[in-house]
Amino acid sequence: MKSNLISPFKPKSVKDYKPQDLIIYTLRAGFKKKGKDLLIIVFDKAVPVADAYSQTSMPSAPIIWDKKNNNSFCKVLIVNSGNANAHTGTRGINQIEKYTKVASKIFQCKKSEILVSSTGVIGEELDSAKIIKKLNCMSKNSLKSVKDAAKAIMTTDTFSKVEVVKFRYKSKQIIIYGFAKGSGMIAPNMGTMLAYIFIEAPLKKKDLKKMLMKHIDSTFNSISVDGDTSTSDSIMLFSTGLKNPKITMNNNLLNRISAKVNDIMLSLSKQIISDGEGISKLIEVTVSNANNKTQASNVAFSIAESTLVKTAIAGEDANWGRVVMAIGKADKHVDQDKIIIKFGNSVVAKKGAKYQKIDLRKLNHYMKNKIVKINVNLGIGKYTKRVWSSDLTHRYININADYRS
Amino acid sequence: MKSNLISPFKPKSVKDYKPQDLIIYTLRAGFKKKGKDLLIIVFDKAVPVADAYSQTSMPSAPIIWDKKNNNSFCKVLIVNSGNANAHTGTRGINQIEKYTKVASKIFQCKKSEILVSSTGVIGEELDSAKIIKKLNCMSKNSLKSVKDAAKAIMTTDTFSKVEVVKFRYKSKQIIIYGFAKGSGMIAPNMGTMLAYIFIEAPLKKKDLKKMLMKHIDSTFNSISVDGDTSTSDSIMLFSTGLKNPKITMNNNLLNRISAKVNDIMLSLSKQIISDGEGISKLIEVTVSNANNKTQASNVAFSIAESTLVKTAIAGEDANWGRVVMAIGKADKHVDQDKIIIKFGNSVVAKKGAKYQKIDLRKLNHYMKNKIVKINVNLGIGKYTKRVWSSDLTHRYININADYRS
Repeated sequence: MKSNLISPFKPKSVKDYKPQDLIIYTLRAGFKKKGKDLLIIVFDKAVPVADAYSQTSMPSAPIIWDKKNNNSFCKVLIVNSGNANAHTGTRGINQIEKYTKVASKIFQCKKSEILVSSTGVIGEELDSAKIIKKLNCMSKNSLKSVKDAAKAIMTTDTFSKVEVVKFRYKSKQIIIYGFAKGSGMIAPNMGTMLAYIFIEAPLKKKDLKKMLMKHIDSTFNSISVDGDTSTSDSIMLFSTGLKNPKITMNNNLLNRISAKVNDIMLSLSKQIISDGEGISKLIEVTVSNANNKTQASNVAFSIAESTLVKTAIAGEDANWGRVVMAIGKADKHVDQDKIIIKFGNSVVAKKGAKYQKIDLRKLNHYMKNKIVKINVNLGIGKYTKRVWSSDLTHRYININADYRS
Repeated sequence: MKSNLISPFKPKSVKDYKPQDLIIYTLRAGFKKKGKDLLIIVFDKAVPVADAYSQTSMPSAPIIWDKKNNNSFCKVLIVNSGNANAHTGTRGINQIEKYTKVASKIFQCKKSEILVSSTGVIGEELDSAKIIKKLNCMSKNSLKSVKDAAKAIMTTDTFSKVEVVKFRYKSKQIIIYGFAKGSGMIAPNMGTMLAYIFIEAPLKKKDLKKMLMKHIDSTFNSISVDGDTSTSDSIMLFSTGLKNPKITMNNNLLNRISAKVNDIMLSLSKQIISDGEGISKLIEVTVSNANNKTQASNVAFSIAESTLVKTAIAGEDANWGRVVMAIGKADKHVDQDKIIIKFGNSVVAKKGAKYQKIDLRKLNHYMKNKIVKINVNLGIGKYTKRVWSSDLTHRYININADYRS
């Protein structure tokens, strides 16, 4: 029942970058059946970091550990794929204690300066010996790029997710880059995703935190593959800055950096949803003229996550009746007669009924696109929410009915 | 992409009954591509009825009409399949006005004594002429049974859903029977289901209403195929009673009837979920020892509706990690370390981690069953909720990616 198909959104080439103020190691520890499954990033010196985690009440051991060690500075980041170290109890935490203890000696830092993430199967104990073995035989010869880093943390992903932006500021070039993984268990409030973003400029932790929180709702929290929220999601925003020691931060520069960080977060989010398990089409749902933020968001996610809407899109069927259903179940305070529903720019429903002048030929042609946009104007307020999801296909079932075997 | 497969839960034979105090007509009006698609039930005289409808904010025209005509008595019930008359605006209501006007003349009753339901595609205008044409040429020769009635209202259903119970009370036989349809867009708060239940005993509307409300949460509101709530769901509970005019109602009898009505509602609910679109396995989720009703219900539905859990069950994979995920996303106040998760009677997780003595052979054997029970003991309170859902299979996608074409 395995499927080797890849996302139709896989980019022809993945961006890449080799940072100079940190070292990227990618290794094979043996958690996955094959390929690299261990990423270790060592910063030249401990750097400020802001982080955000899954809002699950069943957090994985790495999230419990990272939160407990909530520290302003990070010297080492250790990420493994293939085993999520989630719902593993105190033994799960102990395994982290073991491998971070070894890492702290090797990299000469405090254990609390080590951040860890794990992604993969939930509920299987993680064997720290596999990581320790690799820690003990690392060499700088294996220096890797951001693209390699992205590859090492993939699970059911079919392509590596990287974004790099550059801009000039007072004759200096500032580079911001990030990478991520995620393709299933993706839902608002951090799906199964891991994302790491690095700013080559000296920012304070509080500015990093502010930036992360400012952009997270419209990016990582606006995508959903399956409405399922992972136990393990983590996003981290680092200021490396060592390459540009002479940059003086000011509000103007901070705003420019913030805008670029938003670009990267949006790009990585869209790359994640474009690799949604089994995706054949990307769905963009925009709900406008809502009464309030919550209404806009509830209606948007209700449409984007409806299995009936998702299968209709997979079948290239502009089944707007299912959009009506999804609106109806999401919110009690919509006004059926004021709603306008569009697929692309074709109006399909208006004034509480089917639009009488639907151009079916144009509509059917539109549905063949790889990206399908559903626009719902609620006609009662001024709030807008845009979210992205993937369609629901046979490949989704192939992937998930047989993930562990 | 069509699939002709039927549910593995299809019963070998469907129960049947021919009531004597009402007339059942099943006809072909032409809403569906083939087969009967119009059901008309005419009571010997107008009877008390209690009703409940979808909690959607986008109700179908029949629901708007039924609610507006909220009347204690019903003389005629008209149900069509193939077109839901939903999101059809004032034109949708006008169509109902037209065919009920004709029906009220033929059956010599008030328009307000006619209840209507429609199920099928949302958003296409319903042509009342198709119903009127049939109303004008009805004959008692075409008298039908409850099984025929169930068949006429099917859409993607693969079998007819009927239940009949009989019991003796003071030398009289009391018969209660019902039929239903539903297989997709099934979710709590009434999925796309239509259900009609008839009690052959003289009950008052207020007692019918009380009975319906008492049992609805643990039956029709405890099943979910896809988490999607229909625009059209309706359940009606009638007291025909004319066959047993000499029965004197009392509390004892009322309680016995209520228990039987509950049996019928549960049976019909389970029949609906057993015909969940594409079902290969029935999933029963029981959450016990929750702190309160809402927590029990949220956690139970989160598990039962998770596409990741549903695909795992389809793949016969006891992937309890996904159950952990679904608990984590549903409620903020669970205690990870107190939860016990079981598949059937095999403990798989306990004390915040994988159970160390899992009998994998027994567990894998259990997963091959047609009915898979997931039990989650939250270990913090005394509330329990049981819900049912279907697994997520290729056939679900076959059905829904190509429903309208």
